[in-house]
Amino acid sequence: MSEDQDLGITQSKIHNTGEWYAEVVQKAELANYGPEGMSGFIVTRPRAYGLWERVQSYLDTRFKQTGVQNAYFPLFIPEGYLEREKEIVEGFDPEVAWVEQAGRNELEERLAVRPTSESIIAPYLSQWIRSYRDLPLRVNQWTSVVRWEATETKPFFRTKEFLWQEGHTAHATRADAWAETMLRLNQYESTYEDLLAIPVLQGAKPEHDKFPGADTTTTVEALMPDGKSVQGATSHYLGTEFADAFDITYTDTDETSRVAHTTSWGLSWRALGALIMTHSDNQGLVLPPTVAPEQVVIVPIWQTETKERVLEYAEDVANNLDDAGIRVELDDRDDQNPGFKFNEWELKGVPLRAEIGPDEATEGTVTLIHRPDGESITAERSEIVETVQEQFDAVYAKLYAAAEETLNSNIRIAETRSELLGTIGQHGGYVKTPWCGDEGCETAIKDEIAAEIVMVPISSDEDDEQDTTDENMGVNNDTTVESNEKSLDLTDSTCVVCDNPAFKTAYFAKSY
Amino acid sequence: MSEDQDLGITQSKIHNTGEWYAEVVQKAELANYGPEGMSGFIVTRPRAYGLWERVQSYLDTRFKQTGVQNAYFPLFIPEGYLEREKEIVEGFDPEVAWVEQAGRNELEERLAVRPTSESIIAPYLSQWIRSYRDLPLRVNQWTSVVRWEATETKPFFRTKEFLWQEGHTAHATRADAWAETMLRLNQYESTYEDLLAIPVLQGAKPEHDKFPGADTTTTVEALMPDGKSVQGATSHYLGTEFADAFDITYTDTDETSRVAHTTSWGLSWRALGALIMTHSDNQGLVLPPTVAPEQVVIVPIWQTETKERVLEYAEDVANNLDDAGIRVELDDRDDQNPGFKFNEWELKGVPLRAEIGPDEATEGTVTLIHRPDGESITAERSEIVETVQEQFDAVYAKLYAAAEETLNSNIRIAETRSELLGTIGQHGGYVKTPWCGDEGCETAIKDEIAAEIVMVPISSDEDDEQDTTDENMGVNNDTTVESNEKSLDLTDSTCVVCDNPAFKTAYFAKSY
Repeated sequence: MSEDQDLGITQSKIHNTGEWYAEVVQKAELANYGPEGMSGFIVTRPRAYGLWERVQSYLDTRFKQTGVQNAYFPLFIPEGYLEREKEIVEGFDPEVAWVEQAGRNELEERLAVRPTSESIIAPYLSQWIRSYRDLPLRVNQWTSVVRWEATETKPFFRTKEFLWQEGHTAHATRADAWAETMLRLNQYESTYEDLLAIPVLQGAKPEHDKFPGADTTTTVEALMPDGKSVQGATSHYLGTEFADAFDITYTDTDETSRVAHTTSWGLSWRALGALIMTHSDNQGLVLPPTVAPEQVVIVPIWQTETKERVLEYAEDVANNLDDAGIRVELDDRDDQNPGFKFNEWELKGVPLRAEIGPDEATEGTVTLIHRPDGESITAERSEIVETVQEQFDAVYAKLYAAAEETLNSNIRIAETRSELLGTIGQHGGYVKTPWCGDEGCETAIKDEIAAEIVMVPISSDEDDEQDTTDENMGVNNDTTVESNEKSLDLTDSTCVVCDNPAFKTAYFAKSY
Repeated sequence: MSEDQDLGITQSKIHNTGEWYAEVVQKAELANYGPEGMSGFIVTRPRAYGLWERVQSYLDTRFKQTGVQNAYFPLFIPEGYLEREKEIVEGFDPEVAWVEQAGRNELEERLAVRPTSESIIAPYLSQWIRSYRDLPLRVNQWTSVVRWEATETKPFFRTKEFLWQEGHTAHATRADAWAETMLRLNQYESTYEDLLAIPVLQGAKPEHDKFPGADTTTTVEALMPDGKSVQGATSHYLGTEFADAFDITYTDTDETSRVAHTTSWGLSWRALGALIMTHSDNQGLVLPPTVAPEQVVIVPIWQTETKERVLEYAEDVANNLDDAGIRVELDDRDDQNPGFKFNEWELKGVPLRAEIGPDEATEGTVTLIHRPDGESITAERSEIVETVQEQFDAVYAKLYAAAEETLNSNIRIAETRSELLGTIGQHGGYVKTPWCGDEGCETAIKDEIAAEIVMVPISSDEDDEQDTTDENMGVNNDTTVESNEKSLDLTDSTCVVCDNPAFKTAYFAKSY
């Protein structure tokens, strides 16, 4: 579709990360910008939507294995419903798109296009839940939401409409709801680490950065190659705030009426942004074989006199791989040469290229090339399925290792304010500091260098605190989950900004 | 959740079809009505959403096998885009919900919440298509759309927001686009007949009832038990109308620029309405095993002294069925008796009930009962998987046969106006009549008895006409498709209303 000279990536990932990202998204045919009059919207093309479908399939399977059912709630929320939980309306009102006219009439009450659905789901949970037998109750929906942010558009990272899933659950006890919160956070971590080849950190958002109305907001954070953190997904323990506002109560075994504890949790197509940004390079998109639309592309290399023999051999290999359930593409176009094809499939992110020429056909081999680094392997024709699958694992491991190396070498510790500012300024990445817990100390840093506290570790202490404040609810300590991300030893520590005693370990970073 | 006396269906399917339907939807936990201020909207509960997921899975698999890729286009369409195809704006404008304010600002141009997406997809098809090599191009999206109809809400049949898929394709020739139109219509027919156990008629809408801007609108029509027809899905051949309006052109092999031919096609959750309405009865929901959330429910029947033995046997059967991939539910609740359980699972539409008591455990048998008619079969324990699967087929065949009998016995022929009015008035169903093709003659009938022309057969003549008017496009006659639904012999016939010569066979019916 494009002229040859337009095909390749012209921007540098290291020097112009933003422009490079936009170019990869466009040229790998992932997305287009929205039409005139709709800046901030994107059109998700099939090659990107296919990635989203694989994320959906991975998560949806795990949700269903762990008691979640899908449902569908209306696109609109009456303003009065949005106002029933005051923090929700304060948190989202500035970003809401409103429908005031429909079917040529003014509406009596204006309707919000859903920015998130707690306010319309909670009233139905209230209807559906009568007794402890109805708990836990878990519903999820895959939808789009609209949040009218004024910031610059960045496909999959910042758009006024985005695709996501939102799960909503109700539980009898605080301990059950907290276990649910962590179960979903762990499923998000697995989506990043086991499907998208991106290591993440688990943490909690500071008090002032929680989801509106939440008791605790947990997050998985991924480090992008430009040193900024991406909030990869969030899982909220909502306490009884929404249950109180929307009357979600149940009759317990002892006939007492109790208020339920609720959670909500969501992962958006921002995961695709992180995927594209993390692995891709100056040749274009790089994808792990787990999600790539084509996992392996076969490029036959022939002269007129070898064409028939090479093509027959290549088709046979393609059929063999296809029969084994491998997503294989045989690029037998006559009107493009192999070099052009190599470039095009590299741009589109196919993880493994199989080259088949007269030598391979004669020797009974296939030459396999890894997309990330060009490593070349000679595979035996007779073992092609097993070898290709092994190479998929090898490519995945390579991508994960590179991302892990970036992450591990970019978590630093700062003991003083100047060290914090200097480290973020010089290296980006995460900087762990002792913190008093006061928002003002974060603001001071934010004003100076646009870095914020993206998370604090979910310590076993905090888990305990969640439980021990819950004396009446039959807490089961087995349900608590420990995070991998450890706190600093805060004994005698003082806040890196204000010098008051430190109670938390703050992970500062610039963020998307 | 409900009191016992509220559990059952109280309305009669035959005498109060509308009230009965609403009661089944509510009590089988399929949907709730929307909140105050949002009449016309429904909340789709997990038991109904699960049905939609099976419809999605069935169709989506077939779409992908036939060259369709999923994508996602924005929820909103700028008013100016909607106006670029004049018939679209005239057809949908009265039903559009408008966003005029977002993020606390008035928008410069108001945005339509998508009522259908031709107007926002076509401009991108225009960008993506350059040469004949890019054709055919096929995209589909699974979304909701909003159409602000003023009529009374009927869950899944008439709601202001509904879930659907919309496919959009572009082709080089009229013949290719027509073949695409019929391919999708046949996939819709298969969804009804092979998944939902509902026979349908294929036809075309009369000229005046086509999709706005379409050349031809084809439809599958299903007959409901109250004698009304439901438009089950539509597939539109759009000609070059949209391609002209949105500049969808391609460079042909001879370097000439040509206008593409486009199609669009959609199936909505109305299919769920037809499913519920067709098979269910005065005991509640009836579902074919193909889509039922639970395909078989095991109800163990015990006394204190036999409990352990019966439950162990029942669990073993359940595991056996589960291992075979059958969706089985073992209802081992202690606090409900078997009669209560029978009623509850009948209400919820489980196609097959397995009763296991001490006799079955001793004899090595399982008693299987068909939901639709209570037929009982004694299955050998050792052959339980095969027998259950056979009984699924038997239940499916039973449901299909009943619906087919209803359909076949309700297609009648009328030669005169009074015969047409009398037959529809007395029997409902479809009445085939010779018709001149004039809208006025339909209006006369509509005014008198609220019946309309729901379809005319897609005759092989019409297929030929599609092709022969297409002299420049390399028509391939193999791509034409014949419909099963035959026209009357119209030789010397006159229109049933106006007595002018008849050119069409009209299927009159009342419709949803």
